[in-house]
Amino acid sequence: MTGFADLGYARVDTDREARQGLPEVVYAPGKQPSEITGIVTELLARSTGPVLVTRLDADTAAQVRVPGGDYDETARLLVWRPAQPRPFRVCIATAGTADWPVAAEAEAVCTAIGLTTHVVRDVGVAGIHRLLAAREDLARADAVIVVAGMEGALASAVGGLVACPVIAVPTSTGYGAALEGVTALLAMLTSCAAGLTVVNIDSGFGAAMAAHRLAHTAAGLR
Amino acid sequence: MTGFADLGYARVDTDREARQGLPEVVYAPGKQPSEITGIVTELLARSTGPVLVTRLDADTAAQVRVPGGDYDETARLLVWRPAQPRPFRVCIATAGTADWPVAAEAEAVCTAIGLTTHVVRDVGVAGIHRLLAAREDLARADAVIVVAGMEGALASAVGGLVACPVIAVPTSTGYGAALEGVTALLAMLTSCAAGLTVVNIDSGFGAAMAAHRLAHTAAGLR
Amino acid sequence: MTGFADLGYARVDTDREARQGLPEVVYAPGKQPSEITGIVTELLARSTGPVLVTRLDADTAAQVRVPGGDYDETARLLVWRPAQPRPFRVCIATAGTADWPVAAEAEAVCTAIGLTTHVVRDVGVAGIHRLLAAREDLARADAVIVVAGMEGALASAVGGLVACPVIAVPTSTGYGAALEGVTALLAMLTSCAAGLTVVNIDSGFGAAMAAHRLAHTAAGLR
Amino acid sequence: MTGFADLGYARVDTDREARQGLPEVVYAPGKQPSEITGIVTELLARSTGPVLVTRLDADTAAQVRVPGGDYDETARLLVWRPAQPRPFRVCIATAGTADWPVAAEAEAVCTAIGLTTHVVRDVGVAGIHRLLAAREDLARADAVIVVAGMEGALASAVGGLVACPVIAVPTSTGYGAALEGVTALLAMLTSCAAGLTVVNIDSGFGAAMAAHRLAHTAAGLR
Amino acid sequence: MTGFADLGYARVDTDREARQGLPEVVYAPGKQPSEITGIVTELLARSTGPVLVTRLDADTAAQVRVPGGDYDETARLLVWRPAQPRPFRVCIATAGTADWPVAAEAEAVCTAIGLTTHVVRDVGVAGIHRLLAAREDLARADAVIVVAGMEGALASAVGGLVACPVIAVPTSTGYGAALEGVTALLAMLTSCAAGLTVVNIDSGFGAAMAAHRLAHTAAGLR
Amino acid sequence: MTGFADLGYARVDTDREARQGLPEVVYAPGKQPSEITGIVTELLARSTGPVLVTRLDADTAAQVRVPGGDYDETARLLVWRPAQPRPFRVCIATAGTADWPVAAEAEAVCTAIGLTTHVVRDVGVAGIHRLLAAREDLARADAVIVVAGMEGALASAVGGLVACPVIAVPTSTGYGAALEGVTALLAMLTSCAAGLTVVNIDSGFGAAMAAHRLAHTAAGLR
Amino acid sequence: MTGFADLGYARVDTDREARQGLPEVVYAPGKQPSEITGIVTELLARSTGPVLVTRLDADTAAQVRVPGGDYDETARLLVWRPAQPRPFRVCIATAGTADWPVAAEAEAVCTAIGLTTHVVRDVGVAGIHRLLAAREDLARADAVIVVAGMEGALASAVGGLVACPVIAVPTSTGYGAALEGVTALLAMLTSCAAGLTVVNIDSGFGAAMAAHRLAHTAAGLR
Amino acid sequence: MTGFADLGYARVDTDREARQGLPEVVYAPGKQPSEITGIVTELLARSTGPVLVTRLDADTAAQVRVPGGDYDETARLLVWRPAQPRPFRVCIATAGTADWPVAAEAEAVCTAIGLTTHVVRDVGVAGIHRLLAAREDLARADAVIVVAGMEGALASAVGGLVACPVIAVPTSTGYGAALEGVTALLAMLTSCAAGLTVVNIDSGFGAAMAAHRLAHTAAGLR
Repeated sequence: MTGFADLGYARVDTDREARQGLPEVVYAPGKQPSEITGIVTELLARSTGPVLVTRLDADTAAQVRVPGGDYDETARLLVWRPAQPRPFRVCIATAGTADWPVAAEAEAVCTAIGLTTHVVRDVGVAGIHRLLAAREDLARADAVIVVAGMEGALASAVGGLVACPVIAVPTSTGYGAALEGVTALLAMLTSCAAGLTVVNIDSGFGAAMAAHRLAHTAAGLR
Repeated sequence: MTGFADLGYARVDTDREARQGLPEVVYAPGKQPSEITGIVTELLARSTGPVLVTRLDADTAAQVRVPGGDYDETARLLVWRPAQPRPFRVCIATAGTADWPVAAEAEAVCTAIGLTTHVVRDVGVAGIHRLLAAREDLARADAVIVVAGMEGALASAVGGLVACPVIAVPTSTGYGAALEGVTALLAMLTSCAAGLTVVNIDSGFGAAMAAHRLAHTAAGLR
Repeated sequence: MTGFADLGYARVDTDREARQGLPEVVYAPGKQPSEITGIVTELLARSTGPVLVTRLDADTAAQVRVPGGDYDETARLLVWRPAQPRPFRVCIATAGTADWPVAAEAEAVCTAIGLTTHVVRDVGVAGIHRLLAAREDLARADAVIVVAGMEGALASAVGGLVACPVIAVPTSTGYGAALEGVTALLAMLTSCAAGLTVVNIDSGFGAAMAAHRLAHTAAGLR
Repeated sequence: MTGFADLGYARVDTDREARQGLPEVVYAPGKQPSEITGIVTELLARSTGPVLVTRLDADTAAQVRVPGGDYDETARLLVWRPAQPRPFRVCIATAGTADWPVAAEAEAVCTAIGLTTHVVRDVGVAGIHRLLAAREDLARADAVIVVAGMEGALASAVGGLVACPVIAVPTSTGYGAALEGVTALLAMLTSCAAGLTVVNIDSGFGAAMAAHRLAHTAAGLR
Repeated sequence: MTGFADLGYARVDTDREARQGLPEVVYAPGKQPSEITGIVTELLARSTGPVLVTRLDADTAAQVRVPGGDYDETARLLVWRPAQPRPFRVCIATAGTADWPVAAEAEAVCTAIGLTTHVVRDVGVAGIHRLLAAREDLARADAVIVVAGMEGALASAVGGLVACPVIAVPTSTGYGAALEGVTALLAMLTSCAAGLTVVNIDSGFGAAMAAHRLAHTAAGLR
Repeated sequence: MTGFADLGYARVDTDREARQGLPEVVYAPGKQPSEITGIVTELLARSTGPVLVTRLDADTAAQVRVPGGDYDETARLLVWRPAQPRPFRVCIATAGTADWPVAAEAEAVCTAIGLTTHVVRDVGVAGIHRLLAAREDLARADAVIVVAGMEGALASAVGGLVACPVIAVPTSTGYGAALEGVTALLAMLTSCAAGLTVVNIDSGFGAAMAAHRLAHTAAGLR
Repeated sequence: MTGFADLGYARVDTDREARQGLPEVVYAPGKQPSEITGIVTELLARSTGPVLVTRLDADTAAQVRVPGGDYDETARLLVWRPAQPRPFRVCIATAGTADWPVAAEAEAVCTAIGLTTHVVRDVGVAGIHRLLAAREDLARADAVIVVAGMEGALASAVGGLVACPVIAVPTSTGYGAALEGVTALLAMLTSCAAGLTVVNIDSGFGAAMAAHRLAHTAAGLR
Repeated sequence: MTGFADLGYARVDTDREARQGLPEVVYAPGKQPSEITGIVTELLARSTGPVLVTRLDADTAAQVRVPGGDYDETARLLVWRPAQPRPFRVCIATAGTADWPVAAEAEAVCTAIGLTTHVVRDVGVAGIHRLLAAREDLARADAVIVVAGMEGALASAVGGLVACPVIAVPTSTGYGAALEGVTALLAMLTSCAAGLTVVNIDSGFGAAMAAHRLAHTAAGLR
């Protein structure tokens, strides 16, 4: 038993669920619809948990020939067999309305893998009272995902308010010196609030998977 | 009650311990020994937990006039009132011997704030069997801190092996295209292993504080 | 009449005071002590206002042979004929203690050219209540200079609180992804708070001169 | 009373007008027409000043369903309830004809919020006599907004001529080493003319809002 | 005899085959179909080995008027007179399915110039057992071409396993901090596995030509 | 007499021909066809030399309503009143066929302003004998314009062969690490061949104008 | 049998010699003299081939307490048990005299591991006849290592002349736009000569190890 | 006859004087005093023109054992057999006093190779009247070398005033966003004044050699 299924165009990691509690997730860019179909079919057959395809545009989604999937266009996510909700609470906070698509991916992935989410939108620091009004929402969370572009200052502000893990997601929102999200990324990495962690630009998926790891450890300790 | 003590040169955040479970940590660069002395004195008086000064060189450490501190030169850390050990287990893995000073900071801070640490040194992917031999150490951890410079590939390899949170710390080890740690940073952010999170270059402290946040949530869920 | 004095090694702009309300300011790096001496002597003879030398280390300052100057080592500033105080109020806010040398330059230059200053130190967003406690100080200001390194989030937070001009000064405080101040610079330029303006990294002088321009216009409109 | 209106997709900062003298301005990119419609409706109901939507393309503008707005395609600006003109004079100078769209945004926003504008176009330093011929226009201004791409040298030249605040706006005009406006941005930040301030690349809006802050202070001092 | 044929728009290097064992290869971007036709015709007449056109899209390929060519759309390669297979074995390993087009170019060029190829797809380090299962394939190779995007960690892992030359090809697969392949490039250059060599981003062609040089030397030594 | 014509949207520098021996050249991007029409009309009326519009696409060129112009689509250049040929000889050498459009601009501008050109195409250093075969062409030149993308090594090779001025033009030819011409630019600036000068990426125009300046001085010395 | 020796501060890869034909090489920076002593002792005991310490300054070398080592200060290399010479011929070509220390490392490592070297110094393209005079030396080589800083054009010139593998080593020689070797690195990666491969900046060691891999394959094919 | 002298550590290009009108110039960094001595001795024996060593610090200069040299510490230049003055006039203009060392190198090299120089110091655009006062000096020149750091705007201003060749030398003067001269470099490359050419950061030598090439052509045309 090798722990993977060799489809020629892909080696599906069939050991992933046993190792990490979730089947392999399919990253769509660069894959043919037929390849996605093949990989998903294999994953559904070889595992029992939720099967996800990320960063999938609507046209390609329509060509994936596996019944039972649920597609979310904003989140660009296609899901089979979503997990039962677990009591791990993830609060997803966005700095501005334009950060929503990235936050939507984080929320949809969290939901698909069984995390409980609560969204607080548009609480950027230019009107800090909006964030302060959300302190109770933040305090109830087991982890906070902060989604922000431009200068990304919301991550630092949230990081100073809560005691739980903060996963910062820089977005490519903004123009000019925002450098397609690089500025927010650098700013979050150098936050004056201690203990923040950061994922790749626009990676709502990465933040949700980091929350999955947290929930795994928290569950193990219970 | 304002939640801070105004010393003129610093506004000590005396509310931090109540808010986040740890007193404010003092970042030494740019501060005079007398200022560090004043801030530490205030923190010891206004809080009950461990008080830490980070990135402190030996010469300055010798000029900080507060009794009872314990200085670790490799970690560049000065600590008063270290916390009692808690059962949250942090495994700290380094890619090479040259990454040790950063890992030493992570370990010393974890220990000072009461996390239980286990160190696995020199398991870079150029000899992947060294890492595979450490799988049990990794599997027992509640969180893994991966410390690696150059191309930082260890973070991806560890991320693929464990289910718990992985906090990646890029180091400035290496030369030329290593770009003072920027290459490792970028590589860790774009890891093919899902759910990794990243902190600033050479920030063993940041990784330890992220582990503190994890332990906080894990304890709350117990 | 040419509007300048040609000293060979320098063309001193003797028209500057008439044109902009202040004599030319001498930037020390790259100049010999004898050159600084010559330029300052010329400026004192050809103008009536304050004469300043910036970014001057103590050793070079000791070799400048012009009586009556007052040297501030933290600000690295040497001043002759400081201006009478004017009622234009500049509030200088710093994110951390390590930002002080840059803020000190801003304060010393403001004072030397006759602006009234008020300093609020160590109000970084990791403990946002420290900043909120300073709201009245900020509200009384005619302009705010925000001095911050690392991710520079303080500029956005202040920008959202006050109605007056905010001049953001990124500092080279921090390490790794702080990129010697470039991260704070980019973050301030992309602030979600509208109408912030930014000067060069570590340029407390530039911020003070921008305040001088504001005071000039405000005075003209009175 | 919370100081904001929660529309679900946005938290409209209804306290902004009281705090900063202008209602919140809507940044269009990433927002649905229905969201813009909702936010603008809320702002018109909860404030009394001008309501603006920036960076709005003509197609989206046509889908915003709020009567009474005035759309400027060059400036990409949609305005309701423009302010009465105030005597604060802003001179907007451009280096070349290609910089006009950014300058047009600055002018349209200034006008919408009640500042008096005067435009001087195409006075780049390659023909410095064109700028010198505009010295009187510049001298009459309470603030100058300099809009320039390529190497952005106009900002330094203007900065040396006038005593009032100079707000430099780098534009993405040019090619190759112009690096989409980054070169002009860096050049303006390192200008040899003291006291210049800089806003984000192509941000005519940011410059106008900085002028708004200047006018606020100048009016308060009157 | 000059060693080249001057077609006006091109100086075809007719000495290349004698000098380096292969006729000049035509890089399509920026060339007109008629120019490609002319150069290929010349090369076929003046040499005896395989003639290749790289990075050629299907539309342009259809306009090249030289009979006998074989076009591979995935590899974007047009080939006349492919070489007889030689016993030099190149193993081409990819990290993910999305890296296939670059690997396809490497494979198609290798095949066209007579190298024997073996492809191992989708063995990224997130599931390291997939790579370890391919150890025998790797061990049989005379050279390995590793094709990987994102953080490019596969190159280091392979570099640590095999003794033969490893040619790393970074790809532009990924987003955000992947920086269009620059991150993988830098990571491969700073690999902790000694003796790796690197070619340009997405250059499957460059890797195949490097393998050609290896085969040349190996054949010469036999 | 002001030395310029104020058309509102442009200040045409009517003094340029007297000052620099050529009327102002019109840079098309960002200008409306009507604006180009207006500026060209003014220039034809106020000067006697050649009038040029650069970087002009064919569609816009068709909308410029000034009779007598001659449009070159490859060079993207529109010319009225080309100058009489002068004996100043410019040799334009390209590294590859793909560099031709930039070289075409250099050649067309040189011709329009009266310089005598000779083109040597496709002499990149990968087949150095092609360049050495052109040594006589190079030796006859009064100046050489070297047009090269990718690593730009041709500039160094030419710089080592000739005694006359070498103007290097980096092009955006290439991919990946070519960084849109930045690599060639940096390489040319750091050439081991002394006395090379460099212009902006893809600026065939800039190189031609630099040659114009050379010819001006050479003529003056005759 | 684990394949490594755990010294606490290092996991010495004792399987490396069997796997790759050479014992692990010790990278000195960041290691204590006692650690180097320990690792070398272990390697000498557990393997039979040459043991090397790279990037070792003279002071530290003097503190390494293992008899029998031979230290080369220019190459910063300490060697025990150098290998017997093999007939694989490596030609090392440098562009300028200042590139020598990097070439010296390449040569010393090659020699230590048994490759036969021939050095051709100072053949930069500014005087191309110097390189052409070395054509026979180059033609006799089984591989060429090109060591060049500044614009690194020598790699392209050599790549066009020889048929064997070319390993390009960019050096940090030069100033300004040479960007500490990044310019040479980028230039070599985008060479117009096909099939070049590149190693890290200043990595004479990396080039020698790449040659070792070539020799391994060539030997296997013989 | 090979055209070079092989000293082992250097291949001295003895054909350079015949080819380019000047013997090879020795770049000191990375060369031993004994190597410089050897190369200079060879050059003096094999050529008749001026022999120069650039970027040579005073300590090393004292160890060069060749009689008759003249050392200029500010220019870091050591010269033997300076050329007779020729009537080609180079005007060297600096933006600020801190740019002098780079300008000094340009001047000293020009003088050593026989060009006539005139220096205009400290005419930065912050006081544009200082530059306008130097118009006659500029007008008399056959070429202008502009030396400027920070934003480098002087190059554009001069470029718009004169008709002769302008060679722009960016300097590393300034701090923060000046990026060690990169900002000035980029700004000069994107100047709105047509026909400027640029050399490497701080390369007064490069500018002088470019002037040498101009003088060569001008002389040939006379």
